Amino acid sequence: MDSATQSKQENCKTGTGSRQHYREQLPALADTIVDHCGDGECFLHVDYEPIPSRSSIIDIIDRFREILFPGYFSSEKLDPVNLKYHLGKAATALFDLLAEQIRNSIRHDCYRYNRECRDCEQEGHRVALAMLASVPQLRRMLSADVRATFEGDPAAKSHDEIIFSYPGIFAQTVYRIAHRLSELGVPILPRIMSEHAHSETGIDIHPSASIGNNFVIDHGTGVVIGETTIIGNNVRIYQGVTLGALSLPPHAGEQYRGKKRHPTIEDDVIIYSGATILGGETVIGARSVIGGNVWLTETVPPDTKVIMESPRLIYR
Amino acid sequence: MDSATQSKQENCKTGTGSRQHYREQLPALADTIVDHCGDGECFLHVDYEPIPSRSSIIDIIDRFREILFPGYFSSEKLDPVNLKYHLGKAATALFDLLAEQIRNSIRHDCYRYNRECRDCEQEGHRVALAMLASVPQLRRMLSADVRATFEGDPAAKSHDEIIFSYPGIFAQTVYRIAHRLSELGVPILPRIMSEHAHSETGIDIHPSASIGNNFVIDHGTGVVIGETTIIGNNVRIYQGVTLGALSLPPHAGEQYRGKKRHPTIEDDVIIYSGATILGGETVIGARSVIGGNVWLTETVPPDTKVIMESPRLIYR
Amino acid sequence: MDSATQSKQENCKTGTGSRQHYREQLPALADTIVDHCGDGECFLHVDYEPIPSRSSIIDIIDRFREILFPGYFSSEKLDPVNLKYHLGKAATALFDLLAEQIRNSIRHDCYRYNRECRDCEQEGHRVALAMLASVPQLRRMLSADVRATFEGDPAAKSHDEIIFSYPGIFAQTVYRIAHRLSELGVPILPRIMSEHAHSETGIDIHPSASIGNNFVIDHGTGVVIGETTIIGNNVRIYQGVTLGALSLPPHAGEQYRGKKRHPTIEDDVIIYSGATILGGETVIGARSVIGGNVWLTETVPPDTKVIMESPRLIYR
Repeated sequence: MDSATQSKQENCKTGTGSRQHYREQLPALADTIVDHCGDGECFLHVDYEPIPSRSSIIDIIDRFREILFPGYFSSEKLDPVNLKYHLGKAATALFDLLAEQIRNSIRHDCYRYNRECRDCEQEGHRVALAMLASVPQLRRMLSADVRATFEGDPAAKSHDEIIFSYPGIFAQTVYRIAHRLSELGVPILPRIMSEHAHSETGIDIHPSASIGNNFVIDHGTGVVIGETTIIGNNVRIYQGVTLGALSLPPHAGEQYRGKKRHPTIEDDVIIYSGATILGGETVIGARSVIGGNVWLTETVPPDTKVIMESPRLIYR
Repeated sequence: MDSATQSKQENCKTGTGSRQHYREQLPALADTIVDHCGDGECFLHVDYEPIPSRSSIIDIIDRFREILFPGYFSSEKLDPVNLKYHLGKAATALFDLLAEQIRNSIRHDCYRYNRECRDCEQEGHRVALAMLASVPQLRRMLSADVRATFEGDPAAKSHDEIIFSYPGIFAQTVYRIAHRLSELGVPILPRIMSEHAHSETGIDIHPSASIGNNFVIDHGTGVVIGETTIIGNNVRIYQGVTLGALSLPPHAGEQYRGKKRHPTIEDDVIIYSGATILGGETVIGARSVIGGNVWLTETVPPDTKVIMESPRLIYR
Repeated sequence: MDSATQSKQENCKTGTGSRQHYREQLPALADTIVDHCGDGECFLHVDYEPIPSRSSIIDIIDRFREILFPGYFSSEKLDPVNLKYHLGKAATALFDLLAEQIRNSIRHDCYRYNRECRDCEQEGHRVALAMLASVPQLRRMLSADVRATFEGDPAAKSHDEIIFSYPGIFAQTVYRIAHRLSELGVPILPRIMSEHAHSETGIDIHPSASIGNNFVIDHGTGVVIGETTIIGNNVRIYQGVTLGALSLPPHAGEQYRGKKRHPTIEDDVIIYSGATILGGETVIGARSVIGGNVWLTETVPPDTKVIMESPRLIYR
C-alpha cells in the first residue's frame, strides 16, 4: 500500500468518524424542528385534508386537454372507431379524479375557516359532472381561440402547430377550465391550476377574470391578467402586458378584497408588448390600440391609438 | 354510537347515494362529448400518427445535450476510457429516437396536408444521421456561446456553472438543434422543441430565426426572437428584449406568412433589457447600443446609442 | 394482394434497406463525435464527480419545503401525533440527501480548480447539519414573507393559497435556502437551485443577493435580482423588475467579478412592474416609490416618487 492510498483511507476513516459525530446531533435537531412549529412563527397544516398535489393537477389538466382536443395529446393513434371508447374512458377517469379533488378542496376550506358543511362528497360529484357538461362550450371557446390565433399570426404553420405548441393556447385552456370551476364555487383548486399554467408559460391569468371569445395571447411570457379584469371579444394581447391594480395604501389587502380593481378591455382592442393598464375604473374603449410599453391608469375612449414618445438617438 | 358519528355515517350514505345518482348520468354525457366532436366546432386529430409527446422531446433534448457537452449531464462519472463507449451508446440511442420522431413528424404533415409521400421511414433515418453529423459544428457554436457568456458576466463563477445552470445556454442549445432540424426540412418537431425551451426558460426563439456566433442572452425571461429575425456575430441581449413584427392589419396571417417581418441585428450590437425592436426592414447597425425599454420601429445606423428620456422625479 | 398494398410493402422494403444504409454509417460518425472532443472546441466533463442532477435538486427543495411549511406539501394527512414522526423522518432524509450533494459540489470544485482538499465528506455533513439548524430562522423569515404578501394582495384568499400556489413564495423559499448554503461556502449547488426556481417561476434571484424581512414579489415573471443587490425590510416588487448591473466594457467579466455592481434598496420601498434599477452605487432611499417601466441608473433620495412621462394619445 503506497502512502497516498494509505492517507486517502485515513481520510475516509476521519470522514466516517465525523459523519457519526454530526449524525448523532440529528435527533436533538429534529426535536427542535418539531417543537418550533408551535411558537406561532411557523405555518402549520395539520388536521386538514391534503390538498391537490401538483401531480394530480397536471393529471387533471392533461386528461381535460385530451377531451377538449381529442387525439392531439394521446399517445395512441385514434380513428373514428376507437375514438368513442377512448373519449368515454377518458371522461369517466376525469370524472373520478375531479370529484375527488373538488371534494378535498371544499373540505379543506370548510375545516380551515369553520364554514358550514356542504356535503363535500356529493358536491364533488355534482361539480365534476357539471364540468363534463361544460365540455361542448369549452371546446367551442377554445376552438375559436385557436382560429383567432392562426388568423393573426403569420408564423403559425397550421392549427395543429398552435394546439400542440403555443403557450397562449395552453394558458387559455387552463384558464377556461379554472374559470368554470371557479364559477361553480370550487375554492383553491382553480388558483393552483392557474399558477401551474403560469409556471409552464409565464402567463398569469387569475381564474376569476372574465374573458370573451376569440382571445389571443401571442408569445405570452410576463402577461398578468388580474382577478377582476373584464375582457371583451376579439381582443389580442402580447408578451409582458399587465392588466393590473393601482397601487394600494399599505395593508390594504383586506379593504380591497373582492372590489373591482383591474381594468375593463372592450371588444376588438389590441395591446402591444410590455404595456401596463391599471385600475378598476380604467376602460379601454372598443377598437383602440395600446402601443408597446405604454403605462396607462386612465380611461381611453373607443377608436384611440395610444403610443409612447420616440426614444432619443445619440450618435457616438 | 353518539349522534355526531351517526349523523356523519348518514351523511356518508347520502354521499354514496348521490354519487351513484351523478355517476349514472356519465354515459349519456360521454355520448354527448363524443357526438359533439363532429359538429365542426371541435378540433379533432384522428387517423394521424401521434406526434412527439413532451416526454419524447425532453428525452431527445437530454440525450443531445449529453453529446454536445459530454459528461456534464451524465449521472455516472466519465473518464477517458469509458467516454468512448458512453458517447457511442448515446449517439446510437439518439439516432433511433430522432429517426422515429422525424418520421412521425413528416408522416403527420403528409397525411394532414395531403402532401406527396416522401418515404418518411427513409427520410427519418437520413435526417437523423445528418443531425449526428452536425454535432461537431453545433459543439463549436455552443462552446463559443458559453465562452462569450463567461467573458461578459461577472456573476459567472466558471464555464461549468454556465453549462450546468444558465437558462440562456439551455435555450440556445435547443435553438441550435431545432434550427438545424428546420434547415433539414423537418416540420412541426422544431417548433415543439423551441416551445419546450420557452416553457423552461421564458426565452422564445423561433427555430427559423438566424443567429450568428458568440451569442449571449443574459437572464433571458421574456426574450422573444421572431421567425425571420437575422442576428449577426457577437450580439448580446438581455431579459425582456423583443425582436418582433410590426402590427398587422386584421386577418393578415395568410398574407404575411413567410415574408421577412422581423428585424436584422448586425455584428457587435448590445440590446438592454425590455427593449423592443420591430419590423422586417428595421436594421440595427453594427456596434450600436439599444438602451433598456426603448421601443424602435426604424433603422438605426452603425455606432449609434439609442436611449429613453429620463424619468420624472417628484419629491413628496 | 392489390397493387396499392404491394406498392406499400415495397416502400417498406426500400425503407428497411435505406435504414440499414444509414445505420451502417453510425459507428464512423460516433468515432468522429468522440474524437472531436479532444480538439479544444468542446467542453468536456471527465474525471469529475457528477454534480447534482435536476431531479436531486427538486427532491431536496421538495423535502426542505415540507419541513419549512409542515403538512402543506405532504401527500398524507398530518395530525399532532404523527407530525413528530413525519418531521423527524423528513429531517433525517433531508440530512442524508444534502450531505451527499454538498460533498459532491465541494469535491467537484476542488478537482476542477485544483483547490486544497477540504475533506468533502466531513464538510458535507457539517454543512447539512448547519442547514437543519437554520430551519427555525428560515421558517421565521418565510412566515413573515407570507404574511406580508397576504396583507398587500387583495386577490389572496388565505395564507394557505399563498403557500400552496404563489410563485413569489416558491422563489423566496428557494432563495432563502440557496442563500444560506451560499453563506456556508457551498459552491455551485446554490446557483443550480436558484436557476431551478427561475425556470419554475420566471423569477431570477442570485443566491448571493442580500434580502431583508417581509419581502414581497407579486406575480414575479421577469424579476431579476443580481448577485450584489442589497434589499432592506418591507420591500415590495412587481413582475418584470430588474435590479441589475450597469453596462460593462467588453470582456469585463473578470475585472468586475466580486465587486458591488447591483443597487441597494432601502426599507419600505415599492417598485412597480417593469422598472429597471442599475448600478452598484445606485441607492433607492427609504420609503420611495418607483413607478412602472421607469429606468434608473442614479440614486434616489428617501421619500421620493419617480414616474414616467405620460404617453401620447392619438385619436384616429
